[in-house]
Amino acid sequence: MNPPHRPLTIAVIGGRYPSPKALRHSEQVGRELAKRGAAVVCGGLIGIMEGVCKGAKEENGLTIGILPGSDPDDANAYVDVPICAGIGYARNIMVVKSGRAVIAIEGSYGTMSEIGHALAEKIPVVGLGTWTFSAGDGSGDDVIRATDAVDAVEKAIAAAKSRGPDSGDPRAAP
Amino acid sequence: MNPPHRPLTIAVIGGRYPSPKALRHSEQVGRELAKRGAAVVCGGLIGIMEGVCKGAKEENGLTIGILPGSDPDDANAYVDVPICAGIGYARNIMVVKSGRAVIAIEGSYGTMSEIGHALAEKIPVVGLGTWTFSAGDGSGDDVIRATDAVDAVEKAIAAAKSRGPDSGDPRAAP
Amino acid sequence: MNPPHRPLTIAVIGGRYPSPKALRHSEQVGRELAKRGAAVVCGGLIGIMEGVCKGAKEENGLTIGILPGSDPDDANAYVDVPICAGIGYARNIMVVKSGRAVIAIEGSYGTMSEIGHALAEKIPVVGLGTWTFSAGDGSGDDVIRATDAVDAVEKAIAAAKSRGPDSGDPRAAP
Amino acid sequence: MNPPHRPLTIAVIGGRYPSPKALRHSEQVGRELAKRGAAVVCGGLIGIMEGVCKGAKEENGLTIGILPGSDPDDANAYVDVPICAGIGYARNIMVVKSGRAVIAIEGSYGTMSEIGHALAEKIPVVGLGTWTFSAGDGSGDDVIRATDAVDAVEKAIAAAKSRGPDSGDPRAAP
Repeated sequence: MNPPHRPLTIAVIGGRYPSPKALRHSEQVGRELAKRGAAVVCGGLIGIMEGVCKGAKEENGLTIGILPGSDPDDANAYVDVPICAGIGYARNIMVVKSGRAVIAIEGSYGTMSEIGHALAEKIPVVGLGTWTFSAGDGSGDDVIRATDAVDAVEKAIAAAKSRGPDSGDPRAAP
Repeated sequence: MNPPHRPLTIAVIGGRYPSPKALRHSEQVGRELAKRGAAVVCGGLIGIMEGVCKGAKEENGLTIGILPGSDPDDANAYVDVPICAGIGYARNIMVVKSGRAVIAIEGSYGTMSEIGHALAEKIPVVGLGTWTFSAGDGSGDDVIRATDAVDAVEKAIAAAKSRGPDSGDPRAAP
Repeated sequence: MNPPHRPLTIAVIGGRYPSPKALRHSEQVGRELAKRGAAVVCGGLIGIMEGVCKGAKEENGLTIGILPGSDPDDANAYVDVPICAGIGYARNIMVVKSGRAVIAIEGSYGTMSEIGHALAEKIPVVGLGTWTFSAGDGSGDDVIRATDAVDAVEKAIAAAKSRGPDSGDPRAAP
Repeated sequence: MNPPHRPLTIAVIGGRYPSPKALRHSEQVGRELAKRGAAVVCGGLIGIMEGVCKGAKEENGLTIGILPGSDPDDANAYVDVPICAGIGYARNIMVVKSGRAVIAIEGSYGTMSEIGHALAEKIPVVGLGTWTFSAGDGSGDDVIRATDAVDAVEKAIAAAKSRGPDSGDPRAAP
């Protein structure tokens, strides 16, 4: 059972130096998540991480940034709660584990590590202009592809809810 | 500069199986922190961790639980934001790093590891009925001792503020 | 300067349930690394991790297994030194960081996370029948592709040496 | 069952800036462990960590250093196998988990965190001039106190063996 005060949390991942299009996507994803009552967890830094937090705050959402370092001031200005993991990029797996689903927007190798960690743990990943890949044995990948920000948010919330009773209440106020 | 929406965060640590007195202390610490606008970060489980979150929610505070495991349902019912660190008790160092100061209430060996991590990183620790210790060379310890819950909260907030401009705004609304 | 007793260390990554071909590759990679005086670091479990350790021990190499859990008995029988990381699959980044280069053999999503972590940290990765991928912006990947086990080992040692004076002495006895 | 090639591993912990007496103790502990066929795992840096590795190498022992950072050159000159954990002092728990028992020599707050982690995980800790402490409820501590280096090594090996069949073969050659 999810306590009524606890929002559904979606992880949003992507790089520090996104394309302008991906940055716009991240802000829209943040707004759409917040409008639906979902909290955002991300890596807390710049780029996609900042975009999604900025969007979420425009709609009064809750934003959590799991930082690689030990200084809360490393968090972008739109993070409500900086978590100082202090373990470098080993924190990547925590970002995806702390969401009930993951939205990957574009992204570089750090994002690839996060997609790998999420899929290894069977956490659903929705991709928006992100990595495509195929295994050495030719099998495909399990990323759910989205066409735009609204589609990504809707697919992520649906995937999160399909994980069962601990999937949070997307309408609970933070 | 601390963004106006970001509350001062205080870490509260202690064991899963506290004495009745320590449990009462934890609830009071939670209430007093929330009344002063400070957010609580803790290990998210039962005992002192549950007590401090329960107290904080009574005063409408914000509570973050950094869990050792990967299931948000491991969090006690008063945690707003469960972080699924998924790294076992290696998460202890993150709990103390994510506060601007630490309040240690009673506690067992896990708490001792957290006090050690905090003091090694020069994060102020306020103790309320917790471990006392002395180094092999006879030097004393750096825990700031408190006499009751209000004293602990006041000393922790003062110590957090003395760390400088990134110490958060204890009056910012969560 | 690398102390004369310290061998060059190569990380070998891959899945627990490899194809027969990939398993043969892993054993041969282990033998070829050991013949060249290089130590093996891996995740310590079964499958590719066991194959590379088995091969290395046939040639009297040194094998290190960084386990996700806390029990050294989780290590396969060919691991000389089990490291009990105890942090679950957050240990993946440590496996690649502890090698001067990485050889990826086939592999599933955990391996993908390791390739992402390695390339994000600019650690060279040699691939043998492993993931192929392309970024959302269409750019290619930086994996150095190998055709067989000897080719993989030679490319990994060359890449490790090109990282500079701390690249270890591949002829030092473990 | 412990494979015949796998040595018993003992973790040795202590500070970077030890007293001359503690440094001598660490070198002697390293020699005595190596003479008994035990491998040393430590934090890989200077001070007690360097002393115990130096002693172990004088007797041809195997030394493993679990570094907080990502550069194997951070390891002292007597470390055979540097593990680049790359997670800062969150690596402390791994050092104690990777030994079948722990010897704590003097030490500062980092050592205190390691003693706490070890005792929380029921890993035996032998203390040589290290921290003394008592819990808030007045209960004592579980550190096994030693009077000198030989006593510490004998008590640590006995405690490690008492943990059961996975306790390693202290006479196996590394």
